Formats: sequence, C-alpha cells, structure tokens
Amino acid sequence: MDADRFEKQIQFILEIDKLKSISRRTYLMNAERHENTAEHSWHLAIMAILLAEHANETVDVARVVKMVLIHDVVEIDAGDTYYYDAVGLRDKAERERRAADRLFGMLPVEQGKELRELWEEFEACRSPEARFASALDRFIPQLHNYHTRGKSWSDHGITADRIIEGNASMAEGSVKLWECAQALLDDAVAKGFLRRSNKT
Amino acid sequence: MDADRFEKQIQFILEIDKLKSISRRTYLMNAERHENTAEHSWHLAIMAILLAEHANETVDVARVVKMVLIHDVVEIDAGDTYYYDAVGLRDKAERERRAADRLFGMLPVEQGKELRELWEEFEACRSPEARFASALDRFIPQLHNYHTRGKSWSDHGITADRIIEGNASMAEGSVKLWECAQALLDDAVAKGFLRRSNKT
Repeated sequence: MDADRFEKQIQFILEIDKLKSISRRTYLMNAERHENTAEHSWHLAIMAILLAEHANETVDVARVVKMVLIHDVVEIDAGDTYYYDAVGLRDKAERERRAADRLFGMLPVEQGKELRELWEEFEACRSPEARFASALDRFIPQLHNYHTRGKSWSDHGITADRIIEGNASMAEGSVKLWECAQALLDDAVAKGFLRRSNKT
Repeated sequence: MDADRFEKQIQFILEIDKLKSISRRTYLMNAERHENTAEHSWHLAIMAILLAEHANETVDVARVVKMVLIHDVVEIDAGDTYYYDAVGLRDKAERERRAADRLFGMLPVEQGKELRELWEEFEACRSPEARFASALDRFIPQLHNYHTRGKSWSDHGITADRIIEGNASMAEGSVKLWECAQALLDDAVAKGFLRRSNKT
C-alpha cells in the first residue's frame, strides 16, 4: 500500500470537516438555527435512497447518493451562494471551479478525478442522476421553509413567483417532487407565510 | 402512485431532521463545537467511498454508504450513548430497538424493512460491510480527538489503554485503519495530550 496515497485520503477527510461550518440560509425544521452544508448533504443522500422511485428517469441510486454527498464540497472555499443572490451568482462558477481544483486535487488522482467528474455532471445537470440530484436539492429547501412557516423566505423577502421561476427545472428531475413543491407553495400562500409576488 | 406511500416517505424525511440536533462527544476538527450525528454520518459516508480499498474484505461500497447514512438514526429517540458510558450502555440496545421500531416503522413497509435490516446488520457486525462500517465509526473519533489535541478525551478522562481496549475490534474491519489509529494514539501520548493509563 502506498503510504502517500493513504495520507492524501486522510488529509481530504480532515479538510472536508470544514463543510460542517458552512451555513446555509435554510433553518432546521425546528427553526432553531440555520443548517450547515454537511448535514444538508446527509439529508439529500437519504432522500435519494428513499425517493428514487419518483425520478422521471431510471437512476443509478448509488451514483445519485455519491453525487449529493460531494455536490457542495466546493463551498469550503467558495461559500454557500444563496440561490436568490444575483451578485453572488455572477462569479459563483469561477469560485467553485477554483475550489474544485484545490479540493479534489488533494486526493489520489483517480479518486479526485471521479469525484470531480461527478460534481461537474451535477453542476451541468447532464444525466438522469444529475437531474434527479438537482431536483432533490431544489425540493428540500421548500420543505424546510414550509415547516418553519416560511422563516428563510421571510428573512430574504422571497415570493412564490420567484421560487417557481427559479425552481421549475425541478420538474426535469422529478415531476412528482415539483408537483409536491407547488402544492406546498400554494398552501404557504394560503396560510399567509409566503407572499405570491411583490405586486400583491 | 400511492399518495400514502409518498406521504410516509416525506414524514420520515421530516422526522430525521432531528438527527441534526443530536450532539456527539467529539468536537469538530476546529474544536469550535461538538459535532452532531447527521454531519458525522455524512462524513462516514464519504470515508466509506474513499477508504473502501483499506477494508480487510471486499465490500459493496454502496451498501456501506447506505449503512453509515442510517446507522445512528435511532439516536433521534435513544440519544447518543457515549462509548465509554458504562451506565448508558446497559439499556442502550433496548432503547435503540424501540427507536428502530418507531422510526423505520414510519416508512413504506419494504423500505423500512430494508433500512432496519441494514441497521441490525451494522449493530451485529455480521457482514464485511458492517465490519468495515464499524471500523470507520470507531476510527473517526480518533482523528477528531487527535486533531483537537485530545479535547474530548480530556473532557471525559479517557486514557490510551481504554481506547485500545474498547476499539481493538476496528481491526476486524480494517487492519490498516487500526494501525493508523494506534500510531495516532502513541503520538498523542508522546505529545502529552493523552495519558497512557490511569496508573501513570
């Protein structure tokens, strides 16, 4: 066994501990604090296992799980860019590309290459697995928001129209999840913890 | 599609958000706070992917990943029982069995059955996948402790002798990880942030 190879794997494992300190905008379901990206990735992985039957296309579940486990690792360097942050989104791709170079570059070459390609596949939404993983990633914030009475939507002045415009591509991965999300949004508007638009 | 089936899946996904609030005794690598069980499970899943080549036996990596993702879900009801807590360990099995009944029972029958069997397999260490998953679970606290200068060991008065006695079974899943853990412990003793035993 190559000692250097094992050492690289351990260094990467130590490094990604930092993802536990990257805060997202969503709150835990009990609204006590923002969730972090590591626990969010865990949640998505279990969702991938349980909800794979609702993907539009047949997916390799193990690949979806691996993809969601590492899909946000780049945030260690690039930070979490809020989905509705127009300024942050401008250079997001470049910041994340540099982060991917550094982080996946820490691993033994073929392992780094595999994870990087999975990450790029996710970012480009260019496979059934990536489209389903992206649908899960777009779906879960709606659950968090709905079950905290729109806490993060309210913090950031987000409206139902904007959520629908930004997340309709969820349907490319799972029509079922997109229908569920739309029903949640309608109910959130009806219950008064989400505004339909800025015009109303 | 059975609406009730989807509803059960979503209720389980909402319920397990609670694992993000279950605190472990280990600290993040930056020592800023204790880590929680959800982010710990994420970390183990990535370790399973990267370190599978160091398992003693050939393992189905996707099964190990699935196993570690759900291995501690029972802590939602049963809490995290510290590895060196003799009193807590007495009724741990019974508390966790009841938790498994309730939590996996929330899912559609065949999904609950699959995850419960994976959890039981992990607990009983009765397959190559379970032995390797258990080795990862025993290995990572040593990394956390070593890189926080023994912070959690110190909080609880743990000695190297006790860690070795309690974790030697790590070698059943991975001799490589056990050798690495022993080297870390030796170095921690040499550097003065772990005592060898209570007699010294």
